[in-house]
Amino acid sequence: MKKKIPVGILGATGSVGQMFVNLLEDHPFFEINDLCASERSHSKKYSEAVNWIIPKPLSEKIGNMVVKPCEPNINSRIVFSGLDSKVAGEIESNFAKNGYIVISNSKNHRMFENVPLLIPDVNPDHLDLIKHQKYGKGLIITNPNCSTIGLCMALKPIIDEFGLDSVNVVTMQAISGAGYPGVASLDIIDNVIPFIKDEEEKMELEPLKILGKINNNKIDFAEFKISAQCNRVAVINGHTECVSIRLLEKQQKKK
Amino acid sequence: MKKKIPVGILGATGSVGQMFVNLLEDHPFFEINDLCASERSHSKKYSEAVNWIIPKPLSEKIGNMVVKPCEPNINSRIVFSGLDSKVAGEIESNFAKNGYIVISNSKNHRMFENVPLLIPDVNPDHLDLIKHQKYGKGLIITNPNCSTIGLCMALKPIIDEFGLDSVNVVTMQAISGAGYPGVASLDIIDNVIPFIKDEEEKMELEPLKILGKINNNKIDFAEFKISAQCNRVAVINGHTECVSIRLLEKQQKKK
Amino acid sequence: MKKKIPVGILGATGSVGQMFVNLLEDHPFFEINDLCASERSHSKKYSEAVNWIIPKPLSEKIGNMVVKPCEPNINSRIVFSGLDSKVAGEIESNFAKNGYIVISNSKNHRMFENVPLLIPDVNPDHLDLIKHQKYGKGLIITNPNCSTIGLCMALKPIIDEFGLDSVNVVTMQAISGAGYPGVASLDIIDNVIPFIKDEEEKMELEPLKILGKINNNKIDFAEFKISAQCNRVAVINGHTECVSIRLLEKQQKKK
Amino acid sequence: MKKKIPVGILGATGSVGQMFVNLLEDHPFFEINDLCASERSHSKKYSEAVNWIIPKPLSEKIGNMVVKPCEPNINSRIVFSGLDSKVAGEIESNFAKNGYIVISNSKNHRMFENVPLLIPDVNPDHLDLIKHQKYGKGLIITNPNCSTIGLCMALKPIIDEFGLDSVNVVTMQAISGAGYPGVASLDIIDNVIPFIKDEEEKMELEPLKILGKINNNKIDFAEFKISAQCNRVAVINGHTECVSIRLLEKQQKKK
Repeated sequence: MKKKIPVGILGATGSVGQMFVNLLEDHPFFEINDLCASERSHSKKYSEAVNWIIPKPLSEKIGNMVVKPCEPNINSRIVFSGLDSKVAGEIESNFAKNGYIVISNSKNHRMFENVPLLIPDVNPDHLDLIKHQKYGKGLIITNPNCSTIGLCMALKPIIDEFGLDSVNVVTMQAISGAGYPGVASLDIIDNVIPFIKDEEEKMELEPLKILGKINNNKIDFAEFKISAQCNRVAVINGHTECVSIRLLEKQQKKK
Repeated sequence: MKKKIPVGILGATGSVGQMFVNLLEDHPFFEINDLCASERSHSKKYSEAVNWIIPKPLSEKIGNMVVKPCEPNINSRIVFSGLDSKVAGEIESNFAKNGYIVISNSKNHRMFENVPLLIPDVNPDHLDLIKHQKYGKGLIITNPNCSTIGLCMALKPIIDEFGLDSVNVVTMQAISGAGYPGVASLDIIDNVIPFIKDEEEKMELEPLKILGKINNNKIDFAEFKISAQCNRVAVINGHTECVSIRLLEKQQKKK
Repeated sequence: MKKKIPVGILGATGSVGQMFVNLLEDHPFFEINDLCASERSHSKKYSEAVNWIIPKPLSEKIGNMVVKPCEPNINSRIVFSGLDSKVAGEIESNFAKNGYIVISNSKNHRMFENVPLLIPDVNPDHLDLIKHQKYGKGLIITNPNCSTIGLCMALKPIIDEFGLDSVNVVTMQAISGAGYPGVASLDIIDNVIPFIKDEEEKMELEPLKILGKINNNKIDFAEFKISAQCNRVAVINGHTECVSIRLLEKQQKKK
Repeated sequence: MKKKIPVGILGATGSVGQMFVNLLEDHPFFEINDLCASERSHSKKYSEAVNWIIPKPLSEKIGNMVVKPCEPNINSRIVFSGLDSKVAGEIESNFAKNGYIVISNSKNHRMFENVPLLIPDVNPDHLDLIKHQKYGKGLIITNPNCSTIGLCMALKPIIDEFGLDSVNVVTMQAISGAGYPGVASLDIIDNVIPFIKDEEEKMELEPLKILGKINNNKIDFAEFKISAQCNRVAVINGHTECVSIRLLEKQQKKK
């Protein structure tokens, strides 16, 4: 196999950033070349800047890398962003404008008109949107909210075959989804928390873009209705979702 | 206040029976007079027969009562039944036939034509059914499945005002609902169990009887559709339910 | 009963302060008259300043009280302090110097020479120390670390009767002891945390003062050895402690 | 590498037996050749006889093996026993008498005079005992109780270098140690169970054999004192142990 592609991670010390490190470290195509984080971590060794919460130990090689600023002067042309949404919007745009390929887990650009909200198994054709982005050589691709992904993978073959009138989804989401320190143990032990900030809004909107169809260089959003109720449960990893659907009546489908 | 009414508890050593003991011990109207259980417990002191799992300690007075057989020769005319469904059918019928008033938490008689499936806040008029029971002076009244009760209390004012087309309900149920020893800790710690035997069937049927209307001495079952998905979560007491409803369209309602 | 004694609570919005509110609200002798907290809460209604985490709901009466600064100009002469140890030292001294009776749960003054470290069931005679405090009409009394209290109550009759050579104690402490938000759920679900900052140090020192004897207006510390190992477990309330002791040999005891 | 050694597993459907399957399936030296269990499982496919609770899925190859009786007529000469202690004594003796090498996790033979209670890192020399067993070509080797193993590995270098006067150990043990269904969830969620049947007795006795010395074909038990307090905590896998030791005084050590 030829040389691996060097990549950078934005927000590398956060919980999403750590997961990128974990998933990319032994990747067959990619090689972690740049770890970028906020000022607090600059010039520190990654092992000193990070509060490593992934069960698999941090490798010495990655731990010894020096953390850089989130500025578009790194050698990797591809960056994976796990930035907090408070800063992701500006930093990711800045990277894209300077010619970088930004793959983002943050919510900021998800609903932008020309930005694919991508689940490779569901809507790979949405990648066409990037031709119409205005970032020159740079571009931004986003992935959906965690609980949206599972839902869309289940809905995709159904909407294609039968059409969807409406979807009710109730989630029981793991605490790891809230980052670290995230959910206080006093709140979740012997309890269910029937609220996750902004989560229901994302689940009721994102699938309509993901399951929409490209039409004239834009996405026509899917038109079914979604009602989402999101709960946090005392589970470390892995979301459970209970979905009820109502199919389109035949007549409507034919249209 | 005048003399309290003596009552008996059938299946008094089980987890439901213990809850009856707990709720009835200091009751303003009732007085526990008879504790009845299976052969294993006969003639033992209640404190020796029971594996008491209620946080509030067993009182000395109740603990010293001698456990009797589940036979219709006790002095209390009212009995509360927490019997296991394997034996509840026969024993409860036997008590009713012998003139006892049986209030049962077991599922066996719930769907019998003349047996009220009662939530006092929702369908007190269903008590009229007892006039048509064939037990002579005896009678049987049942209460619904635990997760059905909360659902029906929420649906009652809605169906009265708007009419219901369909209901989706997802439950996150406490481990106490499975009795003792019930759910194995290896199954539920750091987990959600997406299945509770027979529970979805009960939740999809019982509300139709409870929210039905008495017509000509029978209940016309309510006609909306229910889809229930029941989960067990690592919570000790208290069920959480997420409900989505679709109202009847106006036209249908007018009918 | 005559008029209740008005009292104030310092650090009233914190988790210890809330517990003081909870315990004092219906107290037979005391009446909550002043709720004092940091600048962030000044002039707010208590219900708006506090993130109430006690299961029993906050009463309207207490919720409507206006939070005051932690300054010694309140009418209550007795104050209970649940202040964070970062500020408790200075504020409590200031109250004492200005004539207030300070009862503190904070660690700052516990080891001061003339300050009783009091468990009423164990060392009520240590109250004599307050005569020698230099605060004029004011005074400071402290209570021990939570896990120290249970240990000392068990050790007191043993040391009196047999003498103690050494004590090994291992604790399994509830998450409520860490305040709110306190322990991250990702750290404690499916885990034991074998470290609680400063806890072992307190458990190895405080009992020696508490079980010491007043001699010439000072406390001669008890002389046995303590080895403490403190763990956090996934329990909401209530610490468990496993204690092993070695008694003094008879010869030593006689001395 | 040459042909793998065929082995059998006694009690293959239980939780210990499943762990043997899990650990031996891809073993470099051994090959699972015989799965033996109680009458209830005879002649069934293993996948049908077992309630598989190990996270790693049961392989098709093992799942298709037919379960045999626990009788000494199998081809594997080495058997690993995860039998319940109610039956392990007789069955294991029977295998040994018939020429099999029995490696047992059950407690039954642990304290027999000529049976090694083996931790390979601690007392490999105890294997010499097998020369004096009376089973002909067969033999029995046992491994200690789970919480004993960790304790002995920590104590071994200390007793060798300094000598031990006494040991206090407090355990916080995982629920997996109780098998399946094992600990009821109602007992352990939001709780610590300060009792594990027979566990303290094992921890106070087994280390004295393991850390003893072979003398004249027998083991002279180690002579220090052990006090064990065993707790169950809401952890799935992995025991935590807090150990305090008192070394031998120099004078005694010299002896």
